[in-house]
Amino acid sequence: MEKILSLKYEEGQLVMIDQRKLPLQEVDFVARTYREVDFAIKDMVIRGAPAIGAAAAYGVALAAREFEDLDKEDFMKNLEEALEVLNRSRPTAVNLMWAVKRMRKLINENQNLEVKALSALILEEAHKVTVEDQAINIAMGDHGNTVIPQKATILTHCNTGALATVGIGTALGVVRQAHYSGKDLLVYADETRPRLQGGRLTAWELLKEGIPARLIADSVAATLIRDGKIDVILVGADRVAGNGDAANKIGTFMLSVVAKAYGVPFYVVAPTTTIDFESRSGEDIVIEEREATEVTHIEGVRFAPEGIEVYNPAFDVTPAENITGIVTEKGILKAPYTEAMAALRRTL
Amino acid sequence: MEKILSLKYEEGQLVMIDQRKLPLQEVDFVARTYREVDFAIKDMVIRGAPAIGAAAAYGVALAAREFEDLDKEDFMKNLEEALEVLNRSRPTAVNLMWAVKRMRKLINENQNLEVKALSALILEEAHKVTVEDQAINIAMGDHGNTVIPQKATILTHCNTGALATVGIGTALGVVRQAHYSGKDLLVYADETRPRLQGGRLTAWELLKEGIPARLIADSVAATLIRDGKIDVILVGADRVAGNGDAANKIGTFMLSVVAKAYGVPFYVVAPTTTIDFESRSGEDIVIEEREATEVTHIEGVRFAPEGIEVYNPAFDVTPAENITGIVTEKGILKAPYTEAMAALRRTL
Repeated sequence: MEKILSLKYEEGQLVMIDQRKLPLQEVDFVARTYREVDFAIKDMVIRGAPAIGAAAAYGVALAAREFEDLDKEDFMKNLEEALEVLNRSRPTAVNLMWAVKRMRKLINENQNLEVKALSALILEEAHKVTVEDQAINIAMGDHGNTVIPQKATILTHCNTGALATVGIGTALGVVRQAHYSGKDLLVYADETRPRLQGGRLTAWELLKEGIPARLIADSVAATLIRDGKIDVILVGADRVAGNGDAANKIGTFMLSVVAKAYGVPFYVVAPTTTIDFESRSGEDIVIEEREATEVTHIEGVRFAPEGIEVYNPAFDVTPAENITGIVTEKGILKAPYTEAMAALRRTL
Repeated sequence: MEKILSLKYEEGQLVMIDQRKLPLQEVDFVARTYREVDFAIKDMVIRGAPAIGAAAAYGVALAAREFEDLDKEDFMKNLEEALEVLNRSRPTAVNLMWAVKRMRKLINENQNLEVKALSALILEEAHKVTVEDQAINIAMGDHGNTVIPQKATILTHCNTGALATVGIGTALGVVRQAHYSGKDLLVYADETRPRLQGGRLTAWELLKEGIPARLIADSVAATLIRDGKIDVILVGADRVAGNGDAANKIGTFMLSVVAKAYGVPFYVVAPTTTIDFESRSGEDIVIEEREATEVTHIEGVRFAPEGIEVYNPAFDVTPAENITGIVTEKGILKAPYTEAMAALRRTL
């Protein structure tokens, strides 16, 4: 099995698998400037909350490199602008803001260094973000694996795999660890309209891993859940509020309602970097609305009539009460989440 | 507003709007033989339970015309084969079987007639099926309109309009009658993967009618329902069992679960011809599975990786307990459905 790397840094450039082209074409997108990283995040060359966080960290490193020849004051000014731009590239994924904040803190703490030294330190920090994410993925996978039966049919939504992270994945990382530990799995992958990350990316990753999988339209899941054909549902998150409400790819909330109605375990798998301790509930979470063409066109081909209005929110919020557990690298959080979150926060 | 006619009979040929090509191309598909009608139903040139029923009735008429020059015995033999073929063209829509049964009954009752006279009678009966469906649509629309508020946001699934019938539609017929009666409507139309009948056909019909509409991915509906943005949900049915369980386009069941969880009225709009009084519950309903390419490809363009397995059921079954009411041309049935159905049956 070849290892999937959503991004890698190579001497002054960030090489990303161009996820817009998968699975039909496996080509790289190379960013040499922070603005190219900003574009890559916006246009979903790279997506998935943890992957976006790592990309943004490297974006700051590319900016630092870009401005290395300026004097300190201009360097700092330009760097600050890069931080601002990257921070705004997508609104919902909290890892993005987390990564930018981490880089800003590092810069502030080391502002007495010379430009070149500071630039080197920033790159070092971006590498750290990546290495940490890999370890976090393994830890989440191991914790999550404890809730997977020896023979299990798992339902997934969107893509939460290697492509969404810089490691083995969040929810799909749990699937990988269960598979590696010898469990007998069948994965139903929701295609995840409108961007079809399940149909494109999760299907591709599962095929590469040799994990038995079936692709379904999003609305097929409800019948499978009712008919007892799903043992556990694993989803990722783009932002988890302090009370356990979780923003994730549109369609997650719907699954959670059906899971709750029919008593099927529903787990959110997300690193602690995805938790926004400051937001008290899902109501505080900004939901990104994306272009109408994501709905009216597929593969650049229009299928809906000209002139039809579209409502296209990228995410929805699943209330904590619908979530069986939140799998983090520190263990599995259970209700009451506000207490569990507060306890977790004290350990970070 | 030009009137949309899903099919019309013209001297030896059945002219259908080719729904595979809508909304980008408005072209006709012309069937001159019953086998072409069978193909049109199978390949979804025409779809929607009532429209399929009418098409099948005309298919029998085309067969009769085709075999008019044979002697009586061969005519009857070939006609019987046509009835068999048309009856099997799709497995779930009960109107198809209903229409074939009606034509067979007519043939049996008039088997003493000469070939030409019998053929003329068959065509007459197909016209009757069409005219009746138009009247039934209006009656359903009027009954359904009684549950629509003066200012209402309505959620629809799949296409249940003029294209799915030979009149104004079933669920979309209710929307039309509400609109014609001066109500202030906004319709959220589910795109309805995998075949996108909502995105292609319902969006097209609503634009033609000038009814304010927004297209959404199927999984967006859940959040709209929870957030109180939907006043009423109207869906069609392909087969209603004797206890009120309703088979309809995949995704209907999911909506019903969310509607029930959040107390939003959920109506099935279906003519009595869609009721299969013989099947005691949804478990008796055969669910058609369709080709993997409906999921892996859109507009003939592949987006999912080669080799991925697909599960593609065309319908799901919504249990009677999730249904607020079943709008028929005879009025609105309410729980307990078994009693309501039995009472209805006695009037037919």
